[in-house]
Amino acid sequence: MINNKMKKLGQEGSIIRELNEYGQQLKKQIGEDNVFDFSIGNPSVPCPEVVKQEIIRLTNTIDPITLHSYTSANGLKNVRDAIALQLNKTYNANISSDLIYLTSGASAALTISFNALLNKNDEVIVIAPFFPEYKVFVEKANGKLVVSNSDIKTCLPDFNDLENKINSKTKIIVINSPNNPTGVLYKEDVIIKLANLLKRKQEEYHHDIYLLSDEPYRELIYIDCKYPFITNYYDNSLVCYSFSKSLSLPGERVGYLLVSNSCHNKNVIYQAICGAGRSLGFICLTTLFQYILPICVNYVADLSTYKENKDLLYNALIKMGYQAIYPDGAFYLYVKALEEDANLFANNAKKFNLLLVPSDSFGQKGFVRISYCVTTKQIINSLPAFKKLKEYYQKRS
Amino acid sequence: MINNKMKKLGQEGSIIRELNEYGQQLKKQIGEDNVFDFSIGNPSVPCPEVVKQEIIRLTNTIDPITLHSYTSANGLKNVRDAIALQLNKTYNANISSDLIYLTSGASAALTISFNALLNKNDEVIVIAPFFPEYKVFVEKANGKLVVSNSDIKTCLPDFNDLENKINSKTKIIVINSPNNPTGVLYKEDVIIKLANLLKRKQEEYHHDIYLLSDEPYRELIYIDCKYPFITNYYDNSLVCYSFSKSLSLPGERVGYLLVSNSCHNKNVIYQAICGAGRSLGFICLTTLFQYILPICVNYVADLSTYKENKDLLYNALIKMGYQAIYPDGAFYLYVKALEEDANLFANNAKKFNLLLVPSDSFGQKGFVRISYCVTTKQIINSLPAFKKLKEYYQKRS
Repeated sequence: MINNKMKKLGQEGSIIRELNEYGQQLKKQIGEDNVFDFSIGNPSVPCPEVVKQEIIRLTNTIDPITLHSYTSANGLKNVRDAIALQLNKTYNANISSDLIYLTSGASAALTISFNALLNKNDEVIVIAPFFPEYKVFVEKANGKLVVSNSDIKTCLPDFNDLENKINSKTKIIVINSPNNPTGVLYKEDVIIKLANLLKRKQEEYHHDIYLLSDEPYRELIYIDCKYPFITNYYDNSLVCYSFSKSLSLPGERVGYLLVSNSCHNKNVIYQAICGAGRSLGFICLTTLFQYILPICVNYVADLSTYKENKDLLYNALIKMGYQAIYPDGAFYLYVKALEEDANLFANNAKKFNLLLVPSDSFGQKGFVRISYCVTTKQIINSLPAFKKLKEYYQKRS
Repeated sequence: MINNKMKKLGQEGSIIRELNEYGQQLKKQIGEDNVFDFSIGNPSVPCPEVVKQEIIRLTNTIDPITLHSYTSANGLKNVRDAIALQLNKTYNANISSDLIYLTSGASAALTISFNALLNKNDEVIVIAPFFPEYKVFVEKANGKLVVSNSDIKTCLPDFNDLENKINSKTKIIVINSPNNPTGVLYKEDVIIKLANLLKRKQEEYHHDIYLLSDEPYRELIYIDCKYPFITNYYDNSLVCYSFSKSLSLPGERVGYLLVSNSCHNKNVIYQAICGAGRSLGFICLTTLFQYILPICVNYVADLSTYKENKDLLYNALIKMGYQAIYPDGAFYLYVKALEEDANLFANNAKKFNLLLVPSDSFGQKGFVRISYCVTTKQIINSLPAFKKLKEYYQKRS
């Protein structure tokens, strides 16, 4: 009688959340320090001090009627100006603040994009492994999710497979770099190759194909490489961004969606974005958090803990004989399971109180995701458990 | 090529916003004090001091990783407990915190409800005049909006018409009391009559009919009357609430959705609500504003300005010979236009720098809405203009 699809979505336990809850229970039984919960991608470093200062300064000095009032649905002009300025300075991009739409985090930016662009049965290609909510968001917007493989060694797009999956119904390609769950960055050569493929396919099919870049981890890069900002390479591009990770504010839902200044029909697309935001019930980005942005947009949380964790964990696991994708960024390590079925492997890891997410949730088999946004102490304490897990499999074979 | 419905929704100027922008321009030309903008329903009183104190106290004392972290999608348990406690104390209701789902304002509560409950072509009945976004939200959730009339003199439901409009496809009846745009409160007798009708119709059609009460103005009541809390009268009921008006925090998007503890299949409905929230891209209510609620839920902004404005304006307009619905609550006065076409009347009002919203936007003809959430000074200064407008029509006739 009610909407069964929605009921199912609400019922189905997220494997990640279930693992995390199992960890909470286990901690009560055997002690916090003995459970190595690597399930959740929740920032483990504080927001920059300037965020705290701005919240207090604004609350103390701005008239509360103004500070907490409605803004226009796309957000305050001076906030969008500050974001455009920061992007243009950092990436030499040509972003117009009139094509930025402030959103309640990247998830809202994604649902608004899909609802604005898709007509029934339009196809959206994602590259496995991928963030599981893409499927939920695309299907809710009446689109069809098509999964393209990545190269099993590099976790970069398999361009042959991608080319084969593009057809006359393809409306959007979603990329997510640095990637959740692999940590891999799409460097400039990959972006150029992708842009060239899409340009060719647009000509072949005589219609626009949008490149949607979901980049909440854009500032979390540990290698010496300039981030190839997508609008510099491909005209029909949109960016979904969140300050959740860069400012360590995940619960405050602060992000934006932007349309490239070179996008075909950019103003019409922006109107559809306004319409989609409206029809999904988004009124405006929280005003207090809009107000902090003109200053805070220029800061990033201290990422040194993530880098330290990554180096420690990656080096130790490789030394033990694990195979893992080298993480250029984000805060995930993608490790090959020690048996074919990653679910069974993750279950065995639980015997050593290691909570790892099987890659099946991300549309790929045979790996586990380790979220290393934890304390460095947890990384260090977990290493003997990883060693025992490896030995357990060595004994079995 | 993109989604045309969304484009249209983004394009179509909201008449209210257009009026407001016209007012901003006019103010630049003829001075702020000479324009009487009654278009927008934006709270004009500050939030209670405790809100400011809590934002600063929490920011100063809670570890920022905790204060700004993700919460579960339905919100923190202690926050939902505090809301349930306040409702049970105030209304002697039997609300369970497990059936409360925190939302980014009442708009999100509405879109999540419609998406959770509706299947394609299910009918949702609203009672004219009604908040225009109901149509947008219902249609985006694949439902069909059915408009029932209200009694032209009282602006209460026309029960004969309502009964005629209920059929086998009716899934939801939406009420909004105190009402935008009329300010009318549905007192206990109206709610009992409505509940009885729906109980009878449920039996007749052998399926659940949900009563959805959209009540952002619940605390803005100026008459001596206890608010009839809907779950005390009808089992299959849901409440959409926002703190936008009660705490004067419209831009911060703080609200909730609750399912009656006596609702048939309440847990299944709650699951569908979780699924709908997820698929629309809502992750959680802003964590900082969740944290302020356990204390702030017990406060209401000072409404004396609204009451003063209402008394001044209503009494003055009646004395001049206007006909208006007596506003029990909210911050709107609903006035009969002085000619048949409310659009023409509102246009003529502009000649006297009075910005009034024609009732056509609310699904009814022949009235204008005056938002009196302005300064008392604006009310006083506007009275000569209202007088001249009346005289203008007297001369014409």
